Amino acid sequence: MNIEVIAIGNEVVSGVTVNTNAAHISSELMRAGFRVNRHSALPDNKKILESGLKEALERNQLVIATGGLGPTCDDVTRQVAASLFHSGFHYDESIANELKQRYGSFIDATLKDQATVPDKALILRNKIGSAPGFVFKNEQVRLILLPGVPVEMRAMLEEAALPYIKQEFQNVSRHYSKVINLVGLPESAVDPLLRRIEIEYPHIECGIYPSLGYISVHFSTLASEEKEAQNLLDIPYKIILDKFKDNSFESPSGRLSHAIHERFIQNKWTLSVAESCSGGSLAAALTQIPGASQYFLGGLVVYSDKLKEHFLHVPKQLLLDIGAVSEEVVTAMIEGLLNETKSDFGIAITGIAGPTGGTEKKPVGTVWAAIGRKGLPPFVWQFHARGNREMILGRIVNIVLGQLWRLTN
Amino acid sequence: MNIEVIAIGNEVVSGVTVNTNAAHISSELMRAGFRVNRHSALPDNKKILESGLKEALERNQLVIATGGLGPTCDDVTRQVAASLFHSGFHYDESIANELKQRYGSFIDATLKDQATVPDKALILRNKIGSAPGFVFKNEQVRLILLPGVPVEMRAMLEEAALPYIKQEFQNVSRHYSKVINLVGLPESAVDPLLRRIEIEYPHIECGIYPSLGYISVHFSTLASEEKEAQNLLDIPYKIILDKFKDNSFESPSGRLSHAIHERFIQNKWTLSVAESCSGGSLAAALTQIPGASQYFLGGLVVYSDKLKEHFLHVPKQLLLDIGAVSEEVVTAMIEGLLNETKSDFGIAITGIAGPTGGTEKKPVGTVWAAIGRKGLPPFVWQFHARGNREMILGRIVNIVLGQLWRLTN
Repeated sequence: MNIEVIAIGNEVVSGVTVNTNAAHISSELMRAGFRVNRHSALPDNKKILESGLKEALERNQLVIATGGLGPTCDDVTRQVAASLFHSGFHYDESIANELKQRYGSFIDATLKDQATVPDKALILRNKIGSAPGFVFKNEQVRLILLPGVPVEMRAMLEEAALPYIKQEFQNVSRHYSKVINLVGLPESAVDPLLRRIEIEYPHIECGIYPSLGYISVHFSTLASEEKEAQNLLDIPYKIILDKFKDNSFESPSGRLSHAIHERFIQNKWTLSVAESCSGGSLAAALTQIPGASQYFLGGLVVYSDKLKEHFLHVPKQLLLDIGAVSEEVVTAMIEGLLNETKSDFGIAITGIAGPTGGTEKKPVGTVWAAIGRKGLPPFVWQFHARGNREMILGRIVNIVLGQLWRLTN
Repeated sequence: MNIEVIAIGNEVVSGVTVNTNAAHISSELMRAGFRVNRHSALPDNKKILESGLKEALERNQLVIATGGLGPTCDDVTRQVAASLFHSGFHYDESIANELKQRYGSFIDATLKDQATVPDKALILRNKIGSAPGFVFKNEQVRLILLPGVPVEMRAMLEEAALPYIKQEFQNVSRHYSKVINLVGLPESAVDPLLRRIEIEYPHIECGIYPSLGYISVHFSTLASEEKEAQNLLDIPYKIILDKFKDNSFESPSGRLSHAIHERFIQNKWTLSVAESCSGGSLAAALTQIPGASQYFLGGLVVYSDKLKEHFLHVPKQLLLDIGAVSEEVVTAMIEGLLNETKSDFGIAITGIAGPTGGTEKKPVGTVWAAIGRKGLPPFVWQFHARGNREMILGRIVNIVLGQLWRLTN
């Protein structure tokens, strides 16, 4: 089965907006057992859009397009799709009434437009924004149109499009997959094992995907029954898990911060952080997970040496003599942090995020970190994070959380 | 001139990796006057890749593809591209030597592969990773292959691919554009003005792109000379600037945090922040800009009420009686912050990021914020941020920075 995801909009094609919709739709379909073959992004231009959609409808059984469904003049997706499926339009009173209830009469001009829908399409209600979604269908192919605003698209995909797809393609063999995430390991530590698995189990596809600071190993297989697939996927999963037990983590979102979140809440531990070079990125990563207040007390972004002295009582002389990026300073930071916040665990970070500030002895990417637990001596170590500033910041967060994960195993 | 950007890799098509490369390449080309018409993402599958590349080469004058150039067996881009341009391969000693110098002999197996290059391609050196890039060319079209790792791709695009493109297409009319960013305004405040501009200046294209917490207005035009284009684009730019002077900002990266960064450094002001619901996201946004230590002293992520009391001296009774999300508490926070950090300016934030924790009186997205300046009474206000947790956090950061921008105008 061939599936394509298309993003429609000048803002995507011109690079103003990063196309996160395509990745989200692919992931959600993959989770449901359907593998996407191709992504496209097309501009809000009737001619290019028409030829692009036509090609996609010819080479796929399912096409999911996002964007261009709004009421402004550059939103042409509805018209182009309707003409490809030889459909006229009608004014839908029930959609109009629903929009009136939610928005009042002040959007009357656009309301009329949004309630004018293709005759031959199944309508998908938009509970968040104003633009409804549509499904067109003929003997060969289904075309699903979703709004481009990510939060609207995601809701409509989950509530309407995915159930529809599962229903329509219930007799198609599905791809099943299992993921194992590993911290503190290079790709090269896992790769030879995966090559052996691929030879021994030819029905299983393996993939390694490096994130900033950890790697994800994916196993997938095509099967007509879920249980059969899961049994098969359990074999390589267990091979990796047995070999790298201490390095593996699982979490609902796949994020390492989420795994820490769940472990800390389960154990009723509290956490606080003291960040210098990471500048709040660690606290931000932890608090992006809903419910973080259950274990995360807070953090100190001690970017300047003055604040390291003031809030964490790092001795001024230490900062002057040895410098902020040092074992001694990070040790003083973690002690100050645990004394001040009284949390069960603490993390302290100091380093050089770049692109300037590096020296020969302490190049950009040099980081000293400490993990402390109330009443015990801290674990203090140095590492080097590669890449540009953005990548270094991302890596620091996951390397430090990976170490916390392994220490609390 | 038709240009297409193609990302190659199962990790992109399956949604494991968000395709940020395409947006980056489009933006950089746009800045150089070239407009991309289409994006595609194709899997590491010889057959699909071959037909996808072939189609793209037929409908464009320039195709830029990223990914699939590495040494592992799933990297097939080189072979597929070479066969489309009827090219054989040879072993390039100078590439091999360069790789040996950088990596030593331990990558010998992959090194041989990476130094085996198509006869008919121009070679683009990779100064960061191991995979070189290539340019294929015939009468109709140029195909540029770049590595998929973003940091390698960006360097090669800037240093080799863009200069090549400018040289090869120097006689083509270019798209020129001008951007104006606006804080604290809804799209609807600007839209009517843009519609009038489009009617009055039919050679100018307008677009509004909303980000979380601010909007960007883009003007573009096609011209053979830059000066002529800039003169034409200055007209609508000035119309918008005159009308919304206090709301507009400019910065090297287009980010609001970057505009604040530059203003604070220029004025030799210092800044500190106290964050509750935003959990470090504000500090993280500010410290993502290189050189933030020149003005940003640091921040307190007072996620728990205990830390609000301990570090900022917010009265316990206030937290108990009125609750953390209140005018009184944010006022106490900003006072405590400025007293403790002695910074010239301070920002304090408290609110409900959701998805839980909302009440009828204080629904999810309710935020109290304060901006303080040493010696002056603080500016304290309430706002409501829409969307899911991730969007709310992003909006809070930009709404608060937008207010700081306007107050320091």
